Amino acid sequence: MIKLGKIKIALLGMGTVGTGVWQIVHENKEEILRSCGYEIEVSKILVRDLEKKRNADIPQSLLTTNYEEIVNDKEIEIVVELMGGIEPAKGYIMKAIENKKHVVTANKALIASHGDEIIEKAKEKKVIIQYEASVGGGIPVLQAIKEGLSGNKIQEVMGIVNGTTNYILTKMTKEKVDFETVLKEAQDKGYAEADPTADIEGYDAAHKLTILASLSFGSNVNFDSVYREGITKITPLDIEYADELGYAIKLLAIGKEKDNEMELRVHPTFIPLSHPLAAVGDAFNAVFLKGNAVGELMFYGKGAGDLPTGSAVVGDMISIIKNKCNLADESLKTVDKKPNKSVKPMSEINCEYYIRVMVKDRPAVLGKIASLIGDSGVSLSTVIQKGEGDPSVSLVFITHRTNEGNIKRALDAIIAVPEVVELANLIRVENS
Amino acid sequence: MIKLGKIKIALLGMGTVGTGVWQIVHENKEEILRSCGYEIEVSKILVRDLEKKRNADIPQSLLTTNYEEIVNDKEIEIVVELMGGIEPAKGYIMKAIENKKHVVTANKALIASHGDEIIEKAKEKKVIIQYEASVGGGIPVLQAIKEGLSGNKIQEVMGIVNGTTNYILTKMTKEKVDFETVLKEAQDKGYAEADPTADIEGYDAAHKLTILASLSFGSNVNFDSVYREGITKITPLDIEYADELGYAIKLLAIGKEKDNEMELRVHPTFIPLSHPLAAVGDAFNAVFLKGNAVGELMFYGKGAGDLPTGSAVVGDMISIIKNKCNLADESLKTVDKKPNKSVKPMSEINCEYYIRVMVKDRPAVLGKIASLIGDSGVSLSTVIQKGEGDPSVSLVFITHRTNEGNIKRALDAIIAVPEVVELANLIRVENS
Repeated sequence: MIKLGKIKIALLGMGTVGTGVWQIVHENKEEILRSCGYEIEVSKILVRDLEKKRNADIPQSLLTTNYEEIVNDKEIEIVVELMGGIEPAKGYIMKAIENKKHVVTANKALIASHGDEIIEKAKEKKVIIQYEASVGGGIPVLQAIKEGLSGNKIQEVMGIVNGTTNYILTKMTKEKVDFETVLKEAQDKGYAEADPTADIEGYDAAHKLTILASLSFGSNVNFDSVYREGITKITPLDIEYADELGYAIKLLAIGKEKDNEMELRVHPTFIPLSHPLAAVGDAFNAVFLKGNAVGELMFYGKGAGDLPTGSAVVGDMISIIKNKCNLADESLKTVDKKPNKSVKPMSEINCEYYIRVMVKDRPAVLGKIASLIGDSGVSLSTVIQKGEGDPSVSLVFITHRTNEGNIKRALDAIIAVPEVVELANLIRVENS
Repeated sequence: MIKLGKIKIALLGMGTVGTGVWQIVHENKEEILRSCGYEIEVSKILVRDLEKKRNADIPQSLLTTNYEEIVNDKEIEIVVELMGGIEPAKGYIMKAIENKKHVVTANKALIASHGDEIIEKAKEKKVIIQYEASVGGGIPVLQAIKEGLSGNKIQEVMGIVNGTTNYILTKMTKEKVDFETVLKEAQDKGYAEADPTADIEGYDAAHKLTILASLSFGSNVNFDSVYREGITKITPLDIEYADELGYAIKLLAIGKEKDNEMELRVHPTFIPLSHPLAAVGDAFNAVFLKGNAVGELMFYGKGAGDLPTGSAVVGDMISIIKNKCNLADESLKTVDKKPNKSVKPMSEINCEYYIRVMVKDRPAVLGKIASLIGDSGVSLSTVIQKGEGDPSVSLVFITHRTNEGNIKRALDAIIAVPEVVELANLIRVENS
């Protein structure tokens, strides 16, 4: 094998992913050399604490707490940001680009909120910015969208992109336990953060959808325009009804585009058991796409963890090494130039709905509510009533396709019915 | 959007895939321009018959029956070979490369048997050869292996890569009908060829495995070293037993590598119903991978058809347009330089086995056969006997992990038992 030389890189941060990258760069030296002709050498690592004990066997001489040592080192060609958060990560990346260094980052929050600004800066300075690890961990889905599928008009992207919530929902499904119990257990095991908000309220998935939609639809996407709903209201009872009706409940990140208007939403979703996404369990991630040429496509794999995420980071470095010379090419200027497509308001979204209502068990209450739903312009496909004689019983309705505005009107009417104890849940159904 | 110009290409062949490419290049002009800065113009099409009626609305002036007109046209930068078969496709491709044209092909038989020679020639002439469409139709799996996963040591690749056989097995499973009936129906509907040998005997899957293994394991792979067994011997009874035992039967293309030795085999396989490949139905394709960094990964999508395959072809063209300048780079010389890894003989393959034997219903025959299996050094995990009083009954054995040599010895002993009417089937089980 011909070895053309070494490429020196710096890591910013030495947590889980940093340790994974260190391990891959050393263990898979031969594979890396074969695919790009170069050896990757980690020549500096920015850390907060020089004394901290580390898992990997890292020479103390590589560690520094001073970013200037990295960004002013002319031999370092690639800066790999693995710190997370907006600042100082953003400042460090901008400065690296300013100093003509290529950048790899796994930082979804940063790319979702400031990606366009960073990418513009990189184009201006003719360096490459790669962020495959920011969505779906080790799954090379962003590359597929940017390259292999670039001859397609992508019409739809639906992803299970948050491992923690998928783990929780899978566990709730298998063991019929409630959300709080599973969350607590996941926290005890280290699968969920002490503050789980970013995961369970869908912020993490919404960051990833921002990135996926931006690349899939070739539009600038504002993170704040993504509708977001978490999984805290899902109960074992909803999961049981879902299963009975032939569905799984998943937290999906959904992006659709038609006539330059996008739907962007993250929420718990009924998905038919026959759909490939329904079988994606535990902490696995998957991204399902529809392109006007390729048809339906799904990518499945580990969305987090030291080595899977490290795999994407190392893949990005190799891609930079292979593509460095392309920067002279004029075509870079046009790539990723994006218009601003509009976002469809949630009130105009069309789908089917699962509605569960707790009612006092009086005669005719089912008929009364069904009529109110009909009066709101919503037609029903399924009605289930279970339990009898209890002080309150569950009524479950699955609607035909309708818009969110009609549903809101139906719900307002339902809540006003005296026999209604509680509007227990409303979950969207993706059936297409 | 900045438009840098037009890239002129020629299509060799205007069948299903050619028509798909034509359609995509015209309908998705904007997406193509956005991703590479150029418009793709089909400037010549090689056909056998100028007068044939065609689906797409193609100007007669583009058609030619004379390859010299294409290969000597200095304005044509990319030649897209969609004819299939070895010759004249190979000769045309070699001549295009000789004349410094980049090449895209969807020809799996050609790449599997002469890929190394063609790739060497392309490197020598500093042009790019792309063949994403040769495996998995529209699924960008080769690109993922070559690029996104290039930091991994890939240990295993298992694929459902032939849509026709997957369609047949799915239909046999759902409708409990026998192989011949489903094949005939598939032929009537145009899903299977009049001569179905390449599909049902596993040649097509073996071609694709040759390509997948070569890229995954970074080795030259000889098509003739792939073990190959088709699906003609699978019966509804085997599928029923499989289901009862928690398995699906799939025609898998399996490649594994350990210590520079490869396993390469295509055969019907028991795969646990919980495995992501088990749910891949109808004519869909999927490739499942294990990398030492990324872990388990699966790609799923349409493996054939005008637009899905066309999607991969157009993706390859865009990739060439984006990477043309890289050719000056020295690194190209090292990429894909491959050693010859050895292939493990089938007699040393280790897996579990499903054995079905038809026997005359005499007392003690089950015990006799079980003992013979044990004497061959094979231990059993499951034994099922069904039916009673019939002149002959089925005995089903699932073995623990053992090697093919031991199994062959056991089968020889079983066949010699007087009560054995027939060794009805032997199917490998992939349980890991």
